[in-house]
Amino acid sequence: MRIFNFSAGPAVLPELVLEIAAGEMLDWHGSGMSVMEMSHRGKEFMSIAAKAEADLRALLAVPSSYKVLFLQGGAIAENALVPMNLLGGRSVADYVNTGEWSKKSIKEAKKYCTVNIAATAEDKNFTYVPALDTWKLSRDSAYVHVCTNETIGGVEYQWTPETGDVPLVADMSSHIMSRVIDVAKYGVIYAGAQKNMGTAGLTVVIVRDDLLDRALPITPSVFHWKEQAEAESMLNTPATYSVYIAGLVFEWLQAQGGLAAIEKKNIAKARLLYDYLDRSKFFLSPVRKEDRSRMNVPFKLRDEKLDEVFLKGAVERGMVQLKGHRAVGGMRASIYNAMPLEGVQTLVDYMQEFEQRHG
Amino acid sequence: MRIFNFSAGPAVLPELVLEIAAGEMLDWHGSGMSVMEMSHRGKEFMSIAAKAEADLRALLAVPSSYKVLFLQGGAIAENALVPMNLLGGRSVADYVNTGEWSKKSIKEAKKYCTVNIAATAEDKNFTYVPALDTWKLSRDSAYVHVCTNETIGGVEYQWTPETGDVPLVADMSSHIMSRVIDVAKYGVIYAGAQKNMGTAGLTVVIVRDDLLDRALPITPSVFHWKEQAEAESMLNTPATYSVYIAGLVFEWLQAQGGLAAIEKKNIAKARLLYDYLDRSKFFLSPVRKEDRSRMNVPFKLRDEKLDEVFLKGAVERGMVQLKGHRAVGGMRASIYNAMPLEGVQTLVDYMQEFEQRHG
Repeated sequence: MRIFNFSAGPAVLPELVLEIAAGEMLDWHGSGMSVMEMSHRGKEFMSIAAKAEADLRALLAVPSSYKVLFLQGGAIAENALVPMNLLGGRSVADYVNTGEWSKKSIKEAKKYCTVNIAATAEDKNFTYVPALDTWKLSRDSAYVHVCTNETIGGVEYQWTPETGDVPLVADMSSHIMSRVIDVAKYGVIYAGAQKNMGTAGLTVVIVRDDLLDRALPITPSVFHWKEQAEAESMLNTPATYSVYIAGLVFEWLQAQGGLAAIEKKNIAKARLLYDYLDRSKFFLSPVRKEDRSRMNVPFKLRDEKLDEVFLKGAVERGMVQLKGHRAVGGMRASIYNAMPLEGVQTLVDYMQEFEQRHG
Repeated sequence: MRIFNFSAGPAVLPELVLEIAAGEMLDWHGSGMSVMEMSHRGKEFMSIAAKAEADLRALLAVPSSYKVLFLQGGAIAENALVPMNLLGGRSVADYVNTGEWSKKSIKEAKKYCTVNIAATAEDKNFTYVPALDTWKLSRDSAYVHVCTNETIGGVEYQWTPETGDVPLVADMSSHIMSRVIDVAKYGVIYAGAQKNMGTAGLTVVIVRDDLLDRALPITPSVFHWKEQAEAESMLNTPATYSVYIAGLVFEWLQAQGGLAAIEKKNIAKARLLYDYLDRSKFFLSPVRKEDRSRMNVPFKLRDEKLDEVFLKGAVERGMVQLKGHRAVGGMRASIYNAMPLEGVQTLVDYMQEFEQRHG
């Protein structure tokens, strides 16, 4: 029996994707091989990778002036690889600090450049996104870095920063493919696949062509965006099975009606949970209303002594991974694309029941 | 119908591993989740990762003074990460050049240090391993790097170099787990998983504890061996599904009787093919007898005009990926652990038949 898995990542995947993967495991499309066994340079896998990239491009409407790279190492690797690939002759980069994931990016970037904190939400415990007109961007910055959805704090940009000629770089790991975005407003978008695109081990980097000439000489080849762009992400053996699973997820997304359609569903799921949190006298959301994430919903019991009782009851009802991140405590429900409305409804029903019993 | 897949990597996997993976895809051990969907910090995946590491340690008899890391990026990433992690205060490293994969390691290392080519087999087109007494090691070298099995050239060390106090670093990507080795003779062993350990996207690094204090400050956190050792390879989200598949492969290896038993089978498979090549007047092996790889067997038709005919006939008989690497031409049969003797016999039968028809 399948359960409702609220994990922040790796996370729930569409059941149909798993069924297809299981069915094709020993023999993909009559090839006599598992996708895991295919040479990455064989015609079978080349067709899988090409379709995955084409579908990703179609879903996000990626302009032709951007490269799409399938790399490895996750977003934390990119935290180092962004400055390595983008600093060129510059020595300063701007970062906006909206929480735990921004902090990780900042810490790593400091190995390679001077980091200017253009804005921070630390004054209110990272429960909001600082308004653009408060950002203090530095002159001669190589780029401006944002984390557009903070997986731990549950803070999400509902708007796109305008940074003029300075390239905007976004870690979108935990909300990519959950909503329509305008790729053209970004210089670089990166994301680990293990939330809305499949399995851990695949990193997607979307980079504008004119930014490919800025890498430091210390950049390892397999993480050098230009070299990988020229090699069509095959300078090393890509994470082939993860690319295949991402491709199945992209096909599922298209069958759902694409990102505009999935965004509507995500808005409905998030509203169901936040509306209840705002009505409740027992649970609360710590995040400012206009900056709340649709993907990661942290919430607290006003009486934290009941945390363990709440979690135990959830597991008994087939709901797992609701414990909040150790950095913030409390609870967190991650409700990615593959989480059905039914899962969120089951959670809200349980919360209401719990509130009535213990409130 | 399954075929005989002679791909150099990603490569054939044990059918039993694929069957288990397919069967558990939607619900691992009653957890209600696919392994792909599991939080890497949940008890389910933690148990999978711990068992995979324990089994790897048992199979290779890894001493307790070594860390085993599950990383990402493949061996080509490690080509950069080895100098980053090992140079410490030194500026020179020794490399032995036995072919295409050595050359890749050397090229990448030059970004970070002065490379001394201690020995090279270039004089005979990389068809042998230079004898240890010809190696010209430099003073003050940070380490000595070897590629113990050249996947493209088909050259394999049948002995372990003694490098005294200077740590020996080995890229074992294409023959790890194929034979018994003495880990204690190495400072660092690294290998991509996509030949004998599972899927592309997982990199195994085995490193002696005393070498963990030598990283350059520019080393990205997720590739910093010491930081990853302290975080038990969870400084970032590991390639969870690839770790799971590797674990299934390790269980299969143990069921085969471990590395001593699999080595006997590999010797028998390699002998079958090389003995035929040496008898044939139609095919030939370019590699010196005592340095021939048991895993990757390059061979040539004396009349290369028949190459395409040979490959076409092989496909018709259910044998794929026999074309040699573009760097050396001709044919290559990769006969990793999961290739049954029957597959090699089918190939040799076909070669004999082909020789009789065209010879």
